[in-house]
Amino acid sequence: MRFTSQTSSGGVSERLFTLGEIPGVLWTPQDATGPRPLILIGHGGGRHKKDPGVLARAHRFVAECGFAAAAVDVPDHGDRPKQEKYQRIATEIQARAQAGDDPAPLIAEFQALVARQTVPEWQAVLDAVQALEYVGVGPVGYWGVSLGCGLGVPFVAAEPRVRAAVLGLGGAQASAEAAARITVPVEFLLQWDDERVPRSEGLALFDAFSSAEKTLHANPGKHGDLPAFELDSTLRFFARHLR
Amino acid sequence: MRFTSQTSSGGVSERLFTLGEIPGVLWTPQDATGPRPLILIGHGGGRHKKDPGVLARAHRFVAECGFAAAAVDVPDHGDRPKQEKYQRIATEIQARAQAGDDPAPLIAEFQALVARQTVPEWQAVLDAVQALEYVGVGPVGYWGVSLGCGLGVPFVAAEPRVRAAVLGLGGAQASAEAAARITVPVEFLLQWDDERVPRSEGLALFDAFSSAEKTLHANPGKHGDLPAFELDSTLRFFARHLR
Repeated sequence: MRFTSQTSSGGVSERLFTLGEIPGVLWTPQDATGPRPLILIGHGGGRHKKDPGVLARAHRFVAECGFAAAAVDVPDHGDRPKQEKYQRIATEIQARAQAGDDPAPLIAEFQALVARQTVPEWQAVLDAVQALEYVGVGPVGYWGVSLGCGLGVPFVAAEPRVRAAVLGLGGAQASAEAAARITVPVEFLLQWDDERVPRSEGLALFDAFSSAEKTLHANPGKHGDLPAFELDSTLRFFARHLR
Repeated sequence: MRFTSQTSSGGVSERLFTLGEIPGVLWTPQDATGPRPLILIGHGGGRHKKDPGVLARAHRFVAECGFAAAAVDVPDHGDRPKQEKYQRIATEIQARAQAGDDPAPLIAEFQALVARQTVPEWQAVLDAVQALEYVGVGPVGYWGVSLGCGLGVPFVAAEPRVRAAVLGLGGAQASAEAAARITVPVEFLLQWDDERVPRSEGLALFDAFSSAEKTLHANPGKHGDLPAFELDSTLRFFARHLR
């Protein structure tokens, strides 16, 4: 793990790093010492580790809860090189959607392919970040919607360090199988008028989680219209389960 | 409005009252003066104005938010006399359910009948309670699930003083028509494994509200298993909309 820059604002320290080929960012309280809960944030499709939505969440996790937060670029995103195998599928998904065909089966296939790379990558990032004295081995949470849900579900299913997850804007076709292996508390965000994930698909994914505590928060609006008050709820959810 | 007793505990003053034939209870902060938000709480079927669930909510609204809270016995419940017209329907609903028939149409009919009485009763209670100096004319919220939803939906639809409502455990068959006239923020509670309200009925009722801000909270469990953390969410919902 190699740190390439460090800045801070509003009591939150931000460190850019690379771990092998993975570019990442770690947020902690300024002058943090000792172990603390850590939230891994998965960004959406076409976004990156310092997307405004990721930044806003990370800053609140750190400033209001004293947690650490980390995000990394998904393959083919942010500071990572484009990879022909992913580009080819992404192009075909767009073509199908424009032709009016259902792109869901191909999106499911794409996310499964990327997850085979990201699950071990994110586990390696957890290893490295938890080895830092000022993060340490505390409980881990995961936050991710849309692509961050498609990649997050197999990650949370595979990684026993994750003790609670906020997921959403994803469907059963891509993720139900891995969701059935998840037993930790889940807060699931669904947009009632999602133009990309059919309502029945989102409801079926919520249904698929094996968690004894899972809570569905559905709100009117399209895929990108998550209401601001859901971030307040996310903070309380993680505070309840990781503290 | 005639007060018949006053007690207090934990900083919360509780006054029993009657308004005409309606027995009610009013909770306020001890030594309250001046106007404040008021939450009307509707109890469930077979319950009453001082049901433990009603009491627990009222105490938190008052102690944590400084609101006033009120609840009254629904006709045929609590301290009110049994009425033959309601008893007859209640008996028939039980008989149908035991015979394996769908009681939903009769429940819908029953709730509509009772609501014709409770809507004006609850409006009279609001008038009387808001005339008290230590409650005053502040924003009003409504909380009610199950029967409290079946009677609450027509009440919230009819009463412009209500500015936000927590509803749930009800279905579209009984309540969709009135729900379509509701435009204030709604937090809607749905139990994913509700043995009394089919999941599709609950989802369809959430869909029916015309509110620009409505949020569905669905959790695993049966009709009576609302998780405790939803009351925390209720407090924040009312604080956001009534303060």
